[in-house]
Amino acid sequence: MAACQVKFMPESRTIEVEEGTSLVKAASQAGIYIKSGCGAKGSCGACRVIVLSGEPEVRGTGKLTPEDIARGVRLSCQTFVHGDVTVEVPPESRLQEHQVLMEDVQKGGLLQETEQDLLDKFSLHPLATKVRVKLSEPTLTENASDWARLQLELRRILAAGVKGVDIPLSVLQTLPEALRQAQWDVAVTLTEGEDKYTVVRVEKGNDRPPYGLAIDIGTTTVVVYLVDLSNGRVIDKQGTYNKQAKFGDDVISRIVYAVDAPGNLQEIQRAVIDTINGLTEQILSRQKLEPADLGAAVVAGNTTMTQLFLGVDPRYVRLEPYIPTMNGVPPLKAQEIGLKMVSEGLVHCFPSVASYVGGDIVSGTMVTDMANGEEIVLFIDIGTNGEIVLGNQDWLVSCACSAGPCFEGGGILFGMRAMPGAIERVYIDPDSLDVSFKVIGRILPVGICGSGLVDALAKLREAGIIDRAGNFQMEHPSHSERLRLTPDDKEFVLAWAHQAGGDKDVVITENDVKNLIRAKGAIYAGIRSLLTMVAVDVDMISRIVIAGGFGNYLNVHDSVEIGLLPDVPAERYEFIGNSSVKGARLALLSQNAWHEAAELGKKMTYIELSVGTTFMDEFVSALFLPHTDLSLFPSVVS
Amino acid sequence: MAACQVKFMPESRTIEVEEGTSLVKAASQAGIYIKSGCGAKGSCGACRVIVLSGEPEVRGTGKLTPEDIARGVRLSCQTFVHGDVTVEVPPESRLQEHQVLMEDVQKGGLLQETEQDLLDKFSLHPLATKVRVKLSEPTLTENASDWARLQLELRRILAAGVKGVDIPLSVLQTLPEALRQAQWDVAVTLTEGEDKYTVVRVEKGNDRPPYGLAIDIGTTTVVVYLVDLSNGRVIDKQGTYNKQAKFGDDVISRIVYAVDAPGNLQEIQRAVIDTINGLTEQILSRQKLEPADLGAAVVAGNTTMTQLFLGVDPRYVRLEPYIPTMNGVPPLKAQEIGLKMVSEGLVHCFPSVASYVGGDIVSGTMVTDMANGEEIVLFIDIGTNGEIVLGNQDWLVSCACSAGPCFEGGGILFGMRAMPGAIERVYIDPDSLDVSFKVIGRILPVGICGSGLVDALAKLREAGIIDRAGNFQMEHPSHSERLRLTPDDKEFVLAWAHQAGGDKDVVITENDVKNLIRAKGAIYAGIRSLLTMVAVDVDMISRIVIAGGFGNYLNVHDSVEIGLLPDVPAERYEFIGNSSVKGARLALLSQNAWHEAAELGKKMTYIELSVGTTFMDEFVSALFLPHTDLSLFPSVVS
Repeated sequence: MAACQVKFMPESRTIEVEEGTSLVKAASQAGIYIKSGCGAKGSCGACRVIVLSGEPEVRGTGKLTPEDIARGVRLSCQTFVHGDVTVEVPPESRLQEHQVLMEDVQKGGLLQETEQDLLDKFSLHPLATKVRVKLSEPTLTENASDWARLQLELRRILAAGVKGVDIPLSVLQTLPEALRQAQWDVAVTLTEGEDKYTVVRVEKGNDRPPYGLAIDIGTTTVVVYLVDLSNGRVIDKQGTYNKQAKFGDDVISRIVYAVDAPGNLQEIQRAVIDTINGLTEQILSRQKLEPADLGAAVVAGNTTMTQLFLGVDPRYVRLEPYIPTMNGVPPLKAQEIGLKMVSEGLVHCFPSVASYVGGDIVSGTMVTDMANGEEIVLFIDIGTNGEIVLGNQDWLVSCACSAGPCFEGGGILFGMRAMPGAIERVYIDPDSLDVSFKVIGRILPVGICGSGLVDALAKLREAGIIDRAGNFQMEHPSHSERLRLTPDDKEFVLAWAHQAGGDKDVVITENDVKNLIRAKGAIYAGIRSLLTMVAVDVDMISRIVIAGGFGNYLNVHDSVEIGLLPDVPAERYEFIGNSSVKGARLALLSQNAWHEAAELGKKMTYIELSVGTTFMDEFVSALFLPHTDLSLFPSVVS
Repeated sequence: MAACQVKFMPESRTIEVEEGTSLVKAASQAGIYIKSGCGAKGSCGACRVIVLSGEPEVRGTGKLTPEDIARGVRLSCQTFVHGDVTVEVPPESRLQEHQVLMEDVQKGGLLQETEQDLLDKFSLHPLATKVRVKLSEPTLTENASDWARLQLELRRILAAGVKGVDIPLSVLQTLPEALRQAQWDVAVTLTEGEDKYTVVRVEKGNDRPPYGLAIDIGTTTVVVYLVDLSNGRVIDKQGTYNKQAKFGDDVISRIVYAVDAPGNLQEIQRAVIDTINGLTEQILSRQKLEPADLGAAVVAGNTTMTQLFLGVDPRYVRLEPYIPTMNGVPPLKAQEIGLKMVSEGLVHCFPSVASYVGGDIVSGTMVTDMANGEEIVLFIDIGTNGEIVLGNQDWLVSCACSAGPCFEGGGILFGMRAMPGAIERVYIDPDSLDVSFKVIGRILPVGICGSGLVDALAKLREAGIIDRAGNFQMEHPSHSERLRLTPDDKEFVLAWAHQAGGDKDVVITENDVKNLIRAKGAIYAGIRSLLTMVAVDVDMISRIVIAGGFGNYLNVHDSVEIGLLPDVPAERYEFIGNSSVKGARLALLSQNAWHEAAELGKKMTYIELSVGTTFMDEFVSALFLPHTDLSLFPSVVS
């Protein structure tokens, strides 16, 4: 195979690849991550690049217009190099650091913790501990083996009367030299399992604390917290896009990719491990620590993310009757999956409940503390899927409904994730239909993100631009130019091209509105189905807890207005952000929390919404703004 | 580096090696194993070969005579190729299949078991089990995960109320396809630990039994038994030389090699794993089984062999105060050390007591059943080291004494291991000094093995050829030509060159006799020291159990005659052969036996003979035939 030079602009980064490599793959090798919504099938049009020089082979042009093609725009997944090329990757095609997470990191230093109460409740009893051990030197008459000598002292220090203390082979292999080089004064890191402690590291005596990682594997983003296990403090955190995004936006396209060809499962597993390791490296470098300082990790992710993380074939998650391979796995050694940690350190994965209610939801449920009181609590994690948990200390039911990718910007003409350039708030003057908006990063808008879309939907309705079914009212009395007909659709202009960061008007179309109504209808129908099945009235709910990156920015008033969330007093709503990683941190710090998580996973009854007609009936009823049954939304003026 | 052709005769096997490779290494690469007594230091002279053509570089000639050198004899460890060479490897320089083990294998088929009583006592409860599980197919309403479905049924079948049932990641990764391809009818192999079962294999439903391996890693030989774990029967066995022999004959030279250069420890570990895997492959091939059919293994070896098997640096075993890295290790996964078995199958290593009382002795002690009765039993395993255990159900003491390599043929001019061509019985006419002998394999003699040496020593003394101190009596009334003086030594001809398989007279020298007296003196002094320290008189011992390949063939009368073994009635002696592998089989078949072994390891008190003067005093007293204190040997006519 001949080698070809591919130069990426504006970085001017050049990489050499084999002839026949796709541009998206070449970019990935150059460390430039390009969006993909369809798993490199050439159908979503998200991966556009501009070929500046060279003549690569074009196998498909998907959604590109003749004008796009004329100015050199190509789909990077459908374009293959056969000679040297120079390619520009425009900002809108790039996967970027997530706004939410960047913000956290930019704060720097020690971060504010909101879950301190819970931590107090569970008490500090971390999954890894570190003890200083000073041993006497062996003699001809005191000739116990190295391990017997250390074990005896560890048992004394740990008061491990009931639990044993074990040592794995790889640590044993380092033991004789470690003890003698440290002159019998060592620091020993141990993980604690249900029935025994395990030594994971023996180093020269020191008083540094043990550290651990709390990891949230989202379909979209991955977040890692570095936690000081001696006091529970979050020392640092870092988040980024899940590198699996190049194989598709949602769990279904990831599954399709994973099972499409031999080796794909390993490739997609490697992508998420690399994502986590990349974040870990950034944190370790900032904190001047090394991988061996990390003694334990807790991972929370949805069922598919967890199976992909573990390299377990997820195909049956997608196929009826939707069977995951497992709910929980025993703790794994870091070396088994290649996490950058001490190699014998244990990685705990949150158990899942079913194919579409995963470990992230179990983790979040723990953070809500809903299973420890009499009050009925509704917990909703809104993303591509909406996962819903309802219950209290006596019972817990859960379900999942597919909202589609709308709230994360997918399936919406100008939809995008919550990152710089995304419209996140919209105001429409009901008379003139003039628009003002707020853009993340205070730059020119290039699209609209989930919270902006919820806002827009509410404002379009309030201004009478759409009716309750989402149909555009072209005869609006304002006769605004913003409301217009195109050959394809009806649309409303949110930002004119001259106000925008791209070269086009940023619009929301009737098709977008219909998609949004289906998305909000699915979530609401899920909530209603669960309430109906357990015969709980919405007024009996004491708290509604909203999680997810999206949930952080959601406007409750607008959400109720469009019928996404139940119409209860605003003070009953709580937003807890990324509850998945928060729960992971709790479990890392407390054996009790970890055990509670395991119990939660078993305790939660999963309701499969595709069985019976309840969900379908509720869904159809919810395809109006706010709903066909207005008595459910007394506070909404229709 | 240029490549050189090295041709080995009489095989006519040619191998290509890099310039500068030693002949012993080249031979090893060609699959021809040459003896080494000194770890390739050029001092023992065991690795002689004859260079037939070519001019390799000679760096040392050690014990070779000018005549040897003239006819092309070279030390293969000191001879390095710089061009093409042809080399003959004579039979006496080759490591060969051990006679004891070959004999067993030649029997073929099912083998007679002598430890049936013990097996009955412990009851069959093997370390791996196999169950047939038929599951119902999942549906939308019965949508438990694959593992939850299987786990529930396993718990029911195993009645695992107390113990959990776990599944490791690598088996989980195969689970979805395994269940569906088998149409939910599977055979599950499990290992059983103290607190849980672990699934190690899920295959299409069948009723084949689970199998396991009992492995004895001797310094000299390695033996593998294939055991049907459903009924305890030994299906097949195979033994061979430990491939580590090329790095030296005894544990000390192995340790020296292992720590001599980076990579050596891994090389010497690899050698024993290869030895075991080679034996396993032979057995599997004969029995038409595959590695995945092997669910568990139990390994017994001395402390150094166990550390080398596990890749644990053994240097402190050799250095005062002689500290092993560990006594026991938790069961290991086969994949951790590369044994040919199902990769998640557990390998149990017998715990050791101290640096020179290892897992093989713990295993043998279990086989003697001495820890379960009131009778005082003396257990002796005679090899390069003599390990001795004394006690009963209430107490157990142990020690080790270095007998040197005499009894295995080392340090004796015509010494050799018990293999074809070795004299194993000697008769000397006291008047004429005419000799008759018995040779293993009924071929011409080329040397003399341990049991032959014990015999020879007794007969030399009976015939008055040597005095009680081992001095040759050159004035013997027979005036036999067999008793003669050479420039180096005094010697007695056991077989004339014309009766022998080599081209020399087979002799025993005064130096040989002195070495043998030191060896037997060390063993006897060890026994006496132990008796003295616990104030037990030899008459209080009910049984004396002798183990070791050597022990199988030892003549009790002669052994007492030379003062190797205590002078007690012959009926108190028992020979149990390779007690190490027998104990390994017991442990494989019985959780109780395995736990008893772990307890035995802790219960046994180790006496370090180098502390104090008792052993040295006893040793000096034992340097006579049979002893300085003849009252200890009333049955011996002096």
